[in-house]
Amino acid sequence: MSDAALIATDRPSFASEGGANSSLPFAPFQQATILGVGLMGGSLGMALRERKLARTVTGWDRSSEALETAVLRGAIDLGTQELANAVRDAEVVFLAVPIGVLSDLLKRIAPLVRPDALITDLGSVKTEIVAEGDRLFGSRFIGGHPMAGSEQGGVGAARPDLFTGAAWAVIPSASSAPPHLARLLALIGALDARAILLDVAEHDRLVALVSHLPHAIAFTLHRTVGADPEHDAALQLAGGSYRDMTRVASSDPAFWRDILLANREFMLPALAAYELLLTELTEAIRENDPAALDRALSLGKGRGD
Amino acid sequence: MSDAALIATDRPSFASEGGANSSLPFAPFQQATILGVGLMGGSLGMALRERKLARTVTGWDRSSEALETAVLRGAIDLGTQELANAVRDAEVVFLAVPIGVLSDLLKRIAPLVRPDALITDLGSVKTEIVAEGDRLFGSRFIGGHPMAGSEQGGVGAARPDLFTGAAWAVIPSASSAPPHLARLLALIGALDARAILLDVAEHDRLVALVSHLPHAIAFTLHRTVGADPEHDAALQLAGGSYRDMTRVASSDPAFWRDILLANREFMLPALAAYELLLTELTEAIRENDPAALDRALSLGKGRGD
Repeated sequence: MSDAALIATDRPSFASEGGANSSLPFAPFQQATILGVGLMGGSLGMALRERKLARTVTGWDRSSEALETAVLRGAIDLGTQELANAVRDAEVVFLAVPIGVLSDLLKRIAPLVRPDALITDLGSVKTEIVAEGDRLFGSRFIGGHPMAGSEQGGVGAARPDLFTGAAWAVIPSASSAPPHLARLLALIGALDARAILLDVAEHDRLVALVSHLPHAIAFTLHRTVGADPEHDAALQLAGGSYRDMTRVASSDPAFWRDILLANREFMLPALAAYELLLTELTEAIRENDPAALDRALSLGKGRGD
Repeated sequence: MSDAALIATDRPSFASEGGANSSLPFAPFQQATILGVGLMGGSLGMALRERKLARTVTGWDRSSEALETAVLRGAIDLGTQELANAVRDAEVVFLAVPIGVLSDLLKRIAPLVRPDALITDLGSVKTEIVAEGDRLFGSRFIGGHPMAGSEQGGVGAARPDLFTGAAWAVIPSASSAPPHLARLLALIGALDARAILLDVAEHDRLVALVSHLPHAIAFTLHRTVGADPEHDAALQLAGGSYRDMTRVASSDPAFWRDILLANREFMLPALAAYELLLTELTEAIRENDPAALDRALSLGKGRGD
C-alpha cells in the first residue's frame, strides 16, 4: 500500500441521512479520526460505527496490516498511512497510540488538523500529554483515559463493547473550552462509558494505585514463579487465584515499561505505600503473630466490588 | 436441633441399585462422610452425589444451620452434629474444615472411625497434617488439597463443578497404603479433577508460590488502595485489572491468617523472592532505567495460561 492510499470498507456506517441513531441526544460527528488502530483505537472505531456516532471513521496507523484488519473487522471506514489525509477533515481526533509515541504524534498533527477540531487521547498517563496538548491546541485539547483494555493487544482483539460500563477519565487542561468538553462528555455517555472528570495530577496518582501498581505486581508475581526451578510443577498446581492475578502479566512488557516510567512521579509513592504494607505482613508472618497478621489482612476500604 | 439429630434429605442419591453411574471405573463408596460443610465440603458433597460416587453422603458440622442448608442444597444426604454418628460407618472421611481446627478434628475422629476407612483432608498446608495423619491413622491417611475455591465461603456458595478441571494435590505419608492411594486417585479422576502427587514439602513450597503468595499480595494491594485518602475516587476509576487482582481479597481474613501462619516456613522464602524482584522493579523506575525495567517486566516462564 502506498503512503497515500486509502483502504475503504464496503460497509458505510451511515446507510442514509436517516441512518443515525436518532434516540441519542448526541449529534454524530461528520468525521472522526483514530490515530493508532490497535486494541483501544480499533474498539473505539467499532463502538463509534456500531452506535453511528460518526458518519465516517477514519483510521491512521504506521502498519498497513493493522489498517487492513481494522477495515475488515469493521473498526474503521477508511484507513490511511498518510497523517495529513487522516486528520485534515476530522471534527474529532483520537490519539490511541502507545504512550511512548503520543507526544511526538501530537506535535506532528498540530499543523494538519482543522482549527475547530476537538483533539483527545486515550493514554494512561496524563501530566506530560495534557501540558503538551494545551501548548499545541489550547482550548481544543482534552485528555482522556478509558479504564479498559485487555492483555491481548492489537486490532484483532478489539471489540465494540470494550468501553461499555467502564470508567473513562476526562482530564481537561486549564484552557480546555466548555463546548469541546461538553461534546466529549456527551460522546463518552453515548458510548455507555462513565465519564469521570479529574485533574491531571489526581488522575496520574489514582491510576498509579488502581492500574499501574496492579500491573507491576502482576508482572512481579509472574516473574517470581517463573524464576522458581520447579515453575512447571507450580503452574500445573495453580488455580484460579494465580491465573486471575497474573492475567495482565501477559500484556506487552514494552507498553507497560513506558507507562511505568511516564508515571514515575506517582508510581514511586504507590510502590512505597504497598511495600510498607507488604513488609508489615511479612513481619507478622516472621514473628508468627496472629494479631499483627489480622491487621495486615484487614480489608480496609479498598473493596472494588 | 439436638446433638444427635440427623437431618435427612428427601432425595436419595441412589434411586436404586442400578443408580450408580455404571460408565465410571470407580466403584462407589457405601458411605462418604464430609466433616465441615462449607464451600469446599459442600461442593464435594454435591459432586459426589451428582456423580453417584457414594451411596450416602453424610455431613458433620458444628453449625446446624450449615447442615440444614447443605441438605436443602443437595450437598449431603444426612447431616449430624454428632461426630461419632457421622464417621462410624464411613468408608471414607473427608476433613473439609479450616486449617486452624484440622489437627484437633483428626485427633477427635481417631477413636471413632472404622479401622479400614480412608481418611483424607482438603487443607491448604500439609506438613503438620500429614505427620499427624500418619501418626494417628498410619497407612489409611492420605493428604489432599484441591486447588479450587472462591472468595465467597460457606455452603451457600458451594457448587458441584467447583473441582471440575482443577488440580487436586495428593500428598501421601511415608506409610500411606497403595490400595487407599489408588482409591483416592480414582475418586479424584471420577470428579474430573487432575490428581497431582506431591511430596509434602514440595506441596507446601509450591502452594506458597502459586496460592498463598498471590493471596497475600491481593490483600496487600487492596489494603494499599483502601488506605489512600481518595480510595472512593480510586475505586470508581478502577478497571478489570484491579478487580481481578483483588477478587480473592474478599476472602475471609481469619481463614487466610491461619493458612499463612501454618505455611510460615515456605511463605517467608516466597515473600523474600517476590520482594527482591519487586525491589528490582522499583529501583528500575527510580533510576528511570528502561533496560532494567524491561528485565524486571520480563515474562520468564511463569505464564499460567
